[in-house]
Amino acid sequence: MLGLGAIRVSGSCSSHIIARGERDVCCEKGGERERERERESESAFSRMICAMSSGSALATRLMTTTTELPAMHISRSVSFLTSQQQQYSYYSFLHTCPRIATFTPTKQLKLLASTERISAMASSHVEKLSPSSVSAENPVECGSSVHDASSSSLETQASASPKKRPADENIRDEARRQGLGAPRCTFSAKYVPFSPFEDTEEEYSLDEIIYRSKTGALLDVQHDLEALKKYDATYWKNLFDSRVGKTSWPYGSGVWSKKEWVLPQIDNDDIVSLFEGNSNLFWAERFGKEMLQMNDLWVKQCGISHTGSFKDLGMTVLVSQVNRLRRMKKPLLGVGCASTGDTSAALSAYCAAAGIPAIVFLPANRISIAQLVQPIANGALVLSLDTDFDGCMRLIREVTAELPIYLANSLNSLRLEGQKTAAIEICQQFDWEVPDWVIVPGGNLGNIYAFFKGFHMCKELGLIDRIPRLVCAQAANANPLYLYYKAGWKNFKAIKASNTFASAIQIGDPVSIDRAVFALQNSDGIVEEATEEELMDACAQADLTGMFTCPHTGVALAALIKLRKNGVIRATDRAVVVSTAHGLKFTQSKIDYHSKAIADLPCKFANPPVQVANDFGAVMDVLRRELSLR
Amino acid sequence: MLGLGAIRVSGSCSSHIIARGERDVCCEKGGERERERERESESAFSRMICAMSSGSALATRLMTTTTELPAMHISRSVSFLTSQQQQYSYYSFLHTCPRIATFTPTKQLKLLASTERISAMASSHVEKLSPSSVSAENPVECGSSVHDASSSSLETQASASPKKRPADENIRDEARRQGLGAPRCTFSAKYVPFSPFEDTEEEYSLDEIIYRSKTGALLDVQHDLEALKKYDATYWKNLFDSRVGKTSWPYGSGVWSKKEWVLPQIDNDDIVSLFEGNSNLFWAERFGKEMLQMNDLWVKQCGISHTGSFKDLGMTVLVSQVNRLRRMKKPLLGVGCASTGDTSAALSAYCAAAGIPAIVFLPANRISIAQLVQPIANGALVLSLDTDFDGCMRLIREVTAELPIYLANSLNSLRLEGQKTAAIEICQQFDWEVPDWVIVPGGNLGNIYAFFKGFHMCKELGLIDRIPRLVCAQAANANPLYLYYKAGWKNFKAIKASNTFASAIQIGDPVSIDRAVFALQNSDGIVEEATEEELMDACAQADLTGMFTCPHTGVALAALIKLRKNGVIRATDRAVVVSTAHGLKFTQSKIDYHSKAIADLPCKFANPPVQVANDFGAVMDVLRRELSLR
Repeated sequence: MLGLGAIRVSGSCSSHIIARGERDVCCEKGGERERERERESESAFSRMICAMSSGSALATRLMTTTTELPAMHISRSVSFLTSQQQQYSYYSFLHTCPRIATFTPTKQLKLLASTERISAMASSHVEKLSPSSVSAENPVECGSSVHDASSSSLETQASASPKKRPADENIRDEARRQGLGAPRCTFSAKYVPFSPFEDTEEEYSLDEIIYRSKTGALLDVQHDLEALKKYDATYWKNLFDSRVGKTSWPYGSGVWSKKEWVLPQIDNDDIVSLFEGNSNLFWAERFGKEMLQMNDLWVKQCGISHTGSFKDLGMTVLVSQVNRLRRMKKPLLGVGCASTGDTSAALSAYCAAAGIPAIVFLPANRISIAQLVQPIANGALVLSLDTDFDGCMRLIREVTAELPIYLANSLNSLRLEGQKTAAIEICQQFDWEVPDWVIVPGGNLGNIYAFFKGFHMCKELGLIDRIPRLVCAQAANANPLYLYYKAGWKNFKAIKASNTFASAIQIGDPVSIDRAVFALQNSDGIVEEATEEELMDACAQADLTGMFTCPHTGVALAALIKLRKNGVIRATDRAVVVSTAHGLKFTQSKIDYHSKAIADLPCKFANPPVQVANDFGAVMDVLRRELSLR
Repeated sequence: MLGLGAIRVSGSCSSHIIARGERDVCCEKGGERERERERESESAFSRMICAMSSGSALATRLMTTTTELPAMHISRSVSFLTSQQQQYSYYSFLHTCPRIATFTPTKQLKLLASTERISAMASSHVEKLSPSSVSAENPVECGSSVHDASSSSLETQASASPKKRPADENIRDEARRQGLGAPRCTFSAKYVPFSPFEDTEEEYSLDEIIYRSKTGALLDVQHDLEALKKYDATYWKNLFDSRVGKTSWPYGSGVWSKKEWVLPQIDNDDIVSLFEGNSNLFWAERFGKEMLQMNDLWVKQCGISHTGSFKDLGMTVLVSQVNRLRRMKKPLLGVGCASTGDTSAALSAYCAAAGIPAIVFLPANRISIAQLVQPIANGALVLSLDTDFDGCMRLIREVTAELPIYLANSLNSLRLEGQKTAAIEICQQFDWEVPDWVIVPGGNLGNIYAFFKGFHMCKELGLIDRIPRLVCAQAANANPLYLYYKAGWKNFKAIKASNTFASAIQIGDPVSIDRAVFALQNSDGIVEEATEEELMDACAQADLTGMFTCPHTGVALAALIKLRKNGVIRATDRAVVVSTAHGLKFTQSKIDYHSKAIADLPCKFANPPVQVANDFGAVMDVLRRELSLR
């Protein structure tokens, strides 16, 4: 299948290109007739080689980033070398190179004339590398502003633009302009009931406002994997990699850099993003070595984020879809939730960014204003209700049944689409090597399923060759999944959760129980638990090696310690602990711990300050004594 | 100067390469004799073209990432295609392509035999693109584990490794192994007195423990720019870009991804990094549009970081250098500082990660334990002294004069080397386009100079063509620089700073005053000030559009608002506001603002919660009323 054409590139002091291929494509923008021709010769085309050559800086630029290339309108396949496609254009070029028609010298010179200099590059084609399996019967008719990645390979952009945006254009305008005239996207996703063990024909458009199936089951966002599979693993890896670290709308986001896998059909213009994701994958060197004799322990710092928790990842997807629905003139007044913590903070921030009203219901006199400060600062309509948390939940359900307010509840399947990108990002940061273990704190249990879904999608699409073993870590005070697991997945019982420092996972009746069981059963997964002492000690020990962990991360770390001790996780394994919030959101529990002010907890790693008189000698005495101990 | 060789690549179903160049280099590892030969023909070599071709996946991989390439020992110049050099190898290849000798078909086939498939790639050489200015008289003898970037182009790696690390090897071990046998680095930096207006021969090694010059002047870390200039702008851009988003030690860090420009001579193994930097460059869409009619307003979120402030950027450099000194057996017991805020937090975290004692002096009864929680949690020796802040400063100076404790004070010039990478990162995130304005909050004034230094270095090395205009924003309650600026830089007077919510910049006698003036004078800079009301209102308004700003960011935003209003900053300008800390570190002031609990402040953008009875009808009434207002 290695069909290798011949390339002959020559030149000495001026630039020109001669490349021989099997077909010519003219410079004019492709119409239906041309598309037809292309389909006809698809397989022959796939053996073609394109080469360009010259003696200039453009060569290198072209291969590293195409953003510096001036506009080129030569063929449908070269169009993606314009600045329009920016980051990933280069990859598109590589992977869709066979789709590039050959250039006649005349055409080349025209090209050269318009670009001044053009450069050396030869690439070849292999069936596996590009979507040559796309046949005339099943053409990829992708594009639209929604799916720039593949549109680049198939369709000339309507217009090319210079690199620098006009002064009166912002990055959103730029994305919009680039989307104009692009063809329809072939990637798609829809709601289906979450029913892994039975077939169902029930399905809904993502543009419907629906939270559960007819039978009350959870929903799942199902992607058209066959469409995605038309592009091979290398294509996706390179596409995702190419979007990291820049400010292109919306791909500067770690969630939307995987847009085709998240909400393929949303218009870039409808997206509400704070450039979330791309969080640090932190190498826990000292904690791993000294506590666990592990060389390869990592903490995915999802909490080092805009609102300080991993909830940003899901909320950008939910609020973007709501924004789309509002622009489609669906009557949505705003988005509501009942939450004391991270969810209301993330919801409020994204709604504020979009100018969409956020409505937050909270029990009066039961939470501190510190817990309220994020939704209040972000302009949410915060209702302080004279009831408890369950009362707030009941009221918001009643209200959203009456008023057109979208409910941002914890069973929402859109949010999981964003959260799953953290799993993809972990693979990406490891250069697509799979860790052996991923440990996720579990309360309502949506996140463990989201991680599974991310890894599973990577495996299905060939980016990784296996799924890491997942560990769901629960607080012993709120451990219904752990009990279920220990009982051999028999007779699930909701429990009444007791107080835990890991307050965000203090849940006795998790809404995503079925999703979690599915994820664990399909990843050779494990459930572990941690007592209050274990989780707070794990936090303190991690902090002493340079982290600043939230109590939920402490639960995951305590689970890891247990699994290392009993040999399930080996010293040489690569493990990733998912940190769900920034420690700055949980300073009070740290203060209490280091003040030894927690009842029934020895706080054995407390590090209280040392009181010293304002006296040089006294200070020196303390320093000599304490430093000799360290 | 466009010396273009000829390439002829052919093949049909098996792979082979024929490339004609001006010289052969044998496969053996390069010795002195070979290096000599290379020097002789350097300039001829610079016109050579290398090409490889075939029909396989490797081509693409080769061009996108070399990490998937199996070991290849072919020549000194192909060695960088091994996994050893990972990320940047590809770029090295492109930019040093001329340095690659030609391959005989035999050699090629050997290569092909070892890799199974090899792929198509043709590149050309232009003088400007690679360091062909390197002459026999001035060879780049780079390398060592310290400087992998250029070593790759000149020296065969001692051994090649498969992509996957052995299970018992961590990323630090891997970096160490890869550094073995590499030649000495030619990049260097040293301390010189900060004296932009007079020549001095005074200089110190970075391995000396010194804080000020003989005359008491500040120090500056001066880089050997001539050595750096041997590599052109494209080389550096691609090198930096290639390191983003991965977990290679230490380049996963946004600071150490610019290692050659920061501390070129430090061994990777001595570096203490939490993979800091790579912070979000946030597009302030709504705030820009609605408040300022700006399309292109950005906030560099340096506070969305490990310890919640930009101090991480500098502290990784300081603690790394201390770690190096300790490994060199210099008698350093630990690192000390007197700080109530971000500095002690960052110092403690980095020392904890390295296992180096951190010593923090704090005034007893003057700060809350919340301000202490980070150093305490990170295991610092916190001395609570029965004195005020000035007393703490005096004591720590006395103590560090007596005991071998490194002083992490605010005049430390190592820290500025880390902080300057935020400026480089801004350019990088904008694809090396320069913003028109960068607005930095100023207290002790080191940061404004650090930003200047970063931009200046980018300009000197050709990565950008101009330096953005810098704005230093001060709280009106602590505005000595503003007064100095308004007086036409005449008769600087230290002042007694009054209380400000922007507590980290509440400084009346800034230590880096000379540095700041130099930065502003050389960037057509401006100083602006903000009252307490202005800064708190700016915070609140920014938060209402989705941010969660600290008061210092509020100072910068308030300065921006003024400069927009008076027309200095235009609607079409691209401006970047530097956010120095996460709002989560400053929740109390937000709580006070939204509770309208601040004396003499109208708090006109406060958004207090609405109290409602536990009653569906009452809730509906509130919602109908409030939502109609929004």
